[in-house]
Amino acid sequence: MATATTPAAAPAILGPAGRIFNFNAGPGALPLPVLQQAQAELLNYSNTGMSVMELSHRSAAFEGILGRADADLRALLGISADYAIIFLQGGATLQFAMAPMNLRPATVSADYVVTGAWAKAAFKEAGKLGLARLAGTGEPGNFSAIPAAGDLSFDPQAAYLHITTNETIHGLEWPTAPTPPAGVPLVADMSSDFVSRPVDVNQYGLIYAGAQKNLGPAGVTVVILRRDLLARVPTGLPLMLDYKLLAENTSLYNTPPAFTIYVVGLVLRWLRDLGGLTVMAARNAAKAGLVYSVIDHSGGFFRGHAQPASRSPMNLTFRLPTEDLEKRFAQQAEAQGLSGLKGHRSIGGLRASLYNAFPPEGADALAQFMREFQRTQG
Amino acid sequence: MATATTPAAAPAILGPAGRIFNFNAGPGALPLPVLQQAQAELLNYSNTGMSVMELSHRSAAFEGILGRADADLRALLGISADYAIIFLQGGATLQFAMAPMNLRPATVSADYVVTGAWAKAAFKEAGKLGLARLAGTGEPGNFSAIPAAGDLSFDPQAAYLHITTNETIHGLEWPTAPTPPAGVPLVADMSSDFVSRPVDVNQYGLIYAGAQKNLGPAGVTVVILRRDLLARVPTGLPLMLDYKLLAENTSLYNTPPAFTIYVVGLVLRWLRDLGGLTVMAARNAAKAGLVYSVIDHSGGFFRGHAQPASRSPMNLTFRLPTEDLEKRFAQQAEAQGLSGLKGHRSIGGLRASLYNAFPPEGADALAQFMREFQRTQG
Repeated sequence: MATATTPAAAPAILGPAGRIFNFNAGPGALPLPVLQQAQAELLNYSNTGMSVMELSHRSAAFEGILGRADADLRALLGISADYAIIFLQGGATLQFAMAPMNLRPATVSADYVVTGAWAKAAFKEAGKLGLARLAGTGEPGNFSAIPAAGDLSFDPQAAYLHITTNETIHGLEWPTAPTPPAGVPLVADMSSDFVSRPVDVNQYGLIYAGAQKNLGPAGVTVVILRRDLLARVPTGLPLMLDYKLLAENTSLYNTPPAFTIYVVGLVLRWLRDLGGLTVMAARNAAKAGLVYSVIDHSGGFFRGHAQPASRSPMNLTFRLPTEDLEKRFAQQAEAQGLSGLKGHRSIGGLRASLYNAFPPEGADALAQFMREFQRTQG
Repeated sequence: MATATTPAAAPAILGPAGRIFNFNAGPGALPLPVLQQAQAELLNYSNTGMSVMELSHRSAAFEGILGRADADLRALLGISADYAIIFLQGGATLQFAMAPMNLRPATVSADYVVTGAWAKAAFKEAGKLGLARLAGTGEPGNFSAIPAAGDLSFDPQAAYLHITTNETIHGLEWPTAPTPPAGVPLVADMSSDFVSRPVDVNQYGLIYAGAQKNLGPAGVTVVILRRDLLARVPTGLPLMLDYKLLAENTSLYNTPPAFTIYVVGLVLRWLRDLGGLTVMAARNAAKAGLVYSVIDHSGGFFRGHAQPASRSPMNLTFRLPTEDLEKRFAQQAEAQGLSGLKGHRSIGGLRASLYNAFPPEGADALAQFMREFQRTQG
């Protein structure tokens, strides 16, 4: 068959298997051993004579894939049987609607802390569909810090308190989650730092995360929901928006995104074999430390967007003295195989995303490139 | 890394690359050249140094993938610029809700023809969310035939007329679509016969199809929507359920299921290179003919569920004289590498799904197996 691809210019620096250092904010890099296993099994999975993409979702082989992904995720995050795990579609953006539609009664308000573009989008969607209240915002400071505890005010009658644990665009992460008033469940969008560090799931009523940062390819969203909250789900929701129906059918009410879930399962196994989330968090902190250290020792040539206490180890946002230098930086980096460093169009500057699968050598390469760039062009 | 798979027993008959004949109703078989290309490019797509799973959805490489899929689908089905094509998530089941939420005003009813389990599910979902009316049903005849034109009654004020062009569980296909009253758009769930034959898209206001039968892996749904109907979309819908927003953002409002769309693109290119939908329809008719011919010449040993004029070339449903024989048939077939022939649990019997990518040799192997089974055990 004819090739469907247009060749791009060859990058200059390549890692193993001709691969590049991928700083994209998401979809992000995947672990090389995961891609290699997916490649090896692509025509014939586990002696079934079929690709995973061709397996019936009611087959024992696919049930095995789904069951292992569930068990590995429970083991990694310490998720008890009090929680349902659902793999579904539509991204975190669909969860912006599903969380309030399922967990917020019509006459009750939900609290939102707005820490960046993603929390703001979740707040807006919740407000469009019912009552939502701002419990705190970092917007006056251009989302350069997570609001201090004293700047948050919680409604003790709220249906839930919603936070975004990591802001992909602004490069902020909550160091520790806030404590809502008694009886108010904490709801978190963890799309961009899910399984990047240990989390006490018991603090949360609901966690949701699009897979395409740390967990796998785009096309599947993980929902972790405390089962007692299923009692809140109203009748009459569209089938595919109904947490109760989806939880009762263990992600198999209709055909799930099977291959995507399979790759997520391989990533979870890779995380387990690597030593779990404590090891991964240390590895992520070390990678981020290499780059933040260059920023902090650049005498102001590189300026971090996030205040140090709110810095994300996932998405590192920084500026250079001029936009022209920023443009040159991104172009020269790209030419050397450091790909995807341009910041989000809404805030400009530069952004390095160092998700789980991003290799330590890549963070080192960026740190070296930054020092060299400042030396020659600063 | 440790293998995450449990080996199954080896099947007896294997096709090229150790692959089996896969009669599953969906996810279905994919073309071997498509899987081979996906495998070859899995670590490094088109010299980008990344897997397709790792590409930014805002990159030129992914825009190329999306643009080619759109263009190839338009060429194959003759889709004009009057129609938007959207790739989205959630399966046909989400479309059961999205179609009425987007296209049916609150006080207006929509017409549904119920031809099997899937049309019934769509009708039920539409009725749960608003006004829906039965325009015809095959249920009294146990869904063994598409209702005759004289048995359909259309509401000339309906928001739209909904049909299910192929019933996966009961094995029926509309030979030609019905003509709704003037001004009433025809809406069709084509999940299980999409791109299996030419279709005059201009007859339809909306077509939707889950990919996992003829088009690609599970995890993406194609929506083809006449643009003038976008004027009906009400304000205030959840973002991910809003056809207008999704169409305006050409499937890129949020991160799309990129790898799944890429495989769909490879399947579309395979269809094009094979000669297009007229060629494919003839090939599908020939495959189905081999099996229906055995049924028709078995002297009643094999009994087709569908009446001949309503027979689907995609899903061939039939019974044997006893349930015990049906069980033995499925088991012996499985042991010979003819996999997935057990009928849907709701109607029992046997079902052979012969989607686009299912090879002609597999249909021939099934026909031979059926004759031999009747000869030895009939």
